[in-house]
Amino acid sequence: MSPGLGPAASEARTDADWLAQTARLAERARPLSRPNPAVGAIIVKDGVVVGRGWTRPGGRPHAEAMALDEAGEAARGATSYVTLEPCAHESARGPACSDLLVEAGVARVVAGVADPDPRTAGKGIEKLRATGIEAEVVDDPASHESLAGYLIQRREGRPHITLKLALSLDGKIALADGTSKWITGEQARAHTHRERAAVDAILVGGETLRADNPSLDVRLPGLEDRSPERFVLTRGHAPEGWNALSGLDDLSALSDIQYLMVEGGGGAAAAFLERDLVDTLLIYRAPVIIGNGRAGVGDIGLTDLAAAHGRWQRIAWRELGDDMLEIYRRTR
Amino acid sequence: MSPGLGPAASEARTDADWLAQTARLAERARPLSRPNPAVGAIIVKDGVVVGRGWTRPGGRPHAEAMALDEAGEAARGATSYVTLEPCAHESARGPACSDLLVEAGVARVVAGVADPDPRTAGKGIEKLRATGIEAEVVDDPASHESLAGYLIQRREGRPHITLKLALSLDGKIALADGTSKWITGEQARAHTHRERAAVDAILVGGETLRADNPSLDVRLPGLEDRSPERFVLTRGHAPEGWNALSGLDDLSALSDIQYLMVEGGGGAAAAFLERDLVDTLLIYRAPVIIGNGRAGVGDIGLTDLAAAHGRWQRIAWRELGDDMLEIYRRTR
Repeated sequence: MSPGLGPAASEARTDADWLAQTARLAERARPLSRPNPAVGAIIVKDGVVVGRGWTRPGGRPHAEAMALDEAGEAARGATSYVTLEPCAHESARGPACSDLLVEAGVARVVAGVADPDPRTAGKGIEKLRATGIEAEVVDDPASHESLAGYLIQRREGRPHITLKLALSLDGKIALADGTSKWITGEQARAHTHRERAAVDAILVGGETLRADNPSLDVRLPGLEDRSPERFVLTRGHAPEGWNALSGLDDLSALSDIQYLMVEGGGGAAAAFLERDLVDTLLIYRAPVIIGNGRAGVGDIGLTDLAAAHGRWQRIAWRELGDDMLEIYRRTR
Repeated sequence: MSPGLGPAASEARTDADWLAQTARLAERARPLSRPNPAVGAIIVKDGVVVGRGWTRPGGRPHAEAMALDEAGEAARGATSYVTLEPCAHESARGPACSDLLVEAGVARVVAGVADPDPRTAGKGIEKLRATGIEAEVVDDPASHESLAGYLIQRREGRPHITLKLALSLDGKIALADGTSKWITGEQARAHTHRERAAVDAILVGGETLRADNPSLDVRLPGLEDRSPERFVLTRGHAPEGWNALSGLDDLSALSDIQYLMVEGGGGAAAAFLERDLVDTLLIYRAPVIIGNGRAGVGDIGLTDLAAAHGRWQRIAWRELGDDMLEIYRRTR
């Protein structure tokens, strides 16, 4: 196996390999599939991909419908990999995917995650099995990861939350006077814009909004329309173009937001961390030392160093120009 | 060429390749060669290394003497690579290396750095050339790096200074109450001990000494005798087993210290950084967030963010257990 390239075409791929590929494909559905989950699907026949799909903007067609459409007659007798259990419920907007899979004559369906939506929740798989299709849910990590926003919203009634920090080597986000332009370089800032284009909403603290008046939009060619909704953490009124979130208890009201990125400042970061509401840390680290400046993270109420350990798993890190990108996932 | 492994034996190596190898060999001389520079030497004949040497404990024999001794008759007609210009001065402790190279009959000498010691300073190379040996100083980066402590001491009259920081993701070295055991894990702490074993002295701030009473010794099997001299930055008296450094102007008095490691706290780190006296940053970064804690770096008087840029070049980074090691070099 070539490192980093996955198995060669000549080698037998496992279900996990195919699902990992399907989960990567599902990234294309973000964030426009909202309010539907960003699902990926591929149809594999004799070891060859004959159809690929991902949830289309607005939620329809579903990933399976798009993949089956591409596969056509080749779907007969094939295996369908899908990150989320195929839906069992018809709607005015289209037929149930489980019915489409039956009609297309696939022989096997492998789903990465069971759908917690009560309209499907196991019924999708049952429906397939009832027609003789070999169908299973395999609890696939890549599928879980790619559906994190949908699953957290379904299970915990809040968005998936990424805390973005653009830090100096010593953990500062600004000079003492608030100057923060720029700590990180162009490549890191462009990466931030790409990450913004994949979330549904962005939040900053009230002080950051007043001090910096950040636009938080996506300034990438072709992605300008992906600028997410903007929230400010404040008990007061939000200015034009912004929504107010009066406190973290109100996150439960953001039921149509699957992915939220918290962009600072230190007080907002601390508020989310103290409540253990951060799922992913996205850290851009510039090769500068600031010393006496504004801390990226305020008081999180930590009194026991041991309690700080075992919470964050480094899942990626690489250079971005002069800066480093580090991504950590909350282990739960 | 295999990535990371250098050229294959069948390929022609350049002088830079051989000097890089010689510089790696020179690491073995640290820190016991003191007060002499930690020099490396290899003798190459027909593309094969026939002798290797590094400065022995206490400074003698010199690297060239050891390498020539190993090469024996094979040195005749060979090329000698040496990180530092061969010495021109005899001493009661041994003959001049330039004389030894002449006697051994080498055909060529390539030195990585000219020796700023006025007793040699160009005379070593001249002496060799006078006998018909092809001799040159090539200004080699790897040799410069491996002799950094010696060269800075000769040129600036102070030790090479490494600032070690064991930090949380948000740049803290302790909780607000001073608790710092432990932020980093076992592998990072073992690495710190190895780094200590390669320096001549370690320094902490007065507050850190009073609060933590750190032993700062080398607790690695076989290296217990490498524990460096201990300094505390204080205008008062140093406790038993410690030396007092009353201020950074007194660094010039540490003429026998080539490598100094500053181990904290935030005030001492800031004092060295503010005076631009840090040559290397050695950062151990643990996957924890502390929030309201003690900053790794205090006030360095920075008022212009642009001035913070362009100072630190990342030269290495890797995982050490759950932690990251990041090494930055001051660009000068």
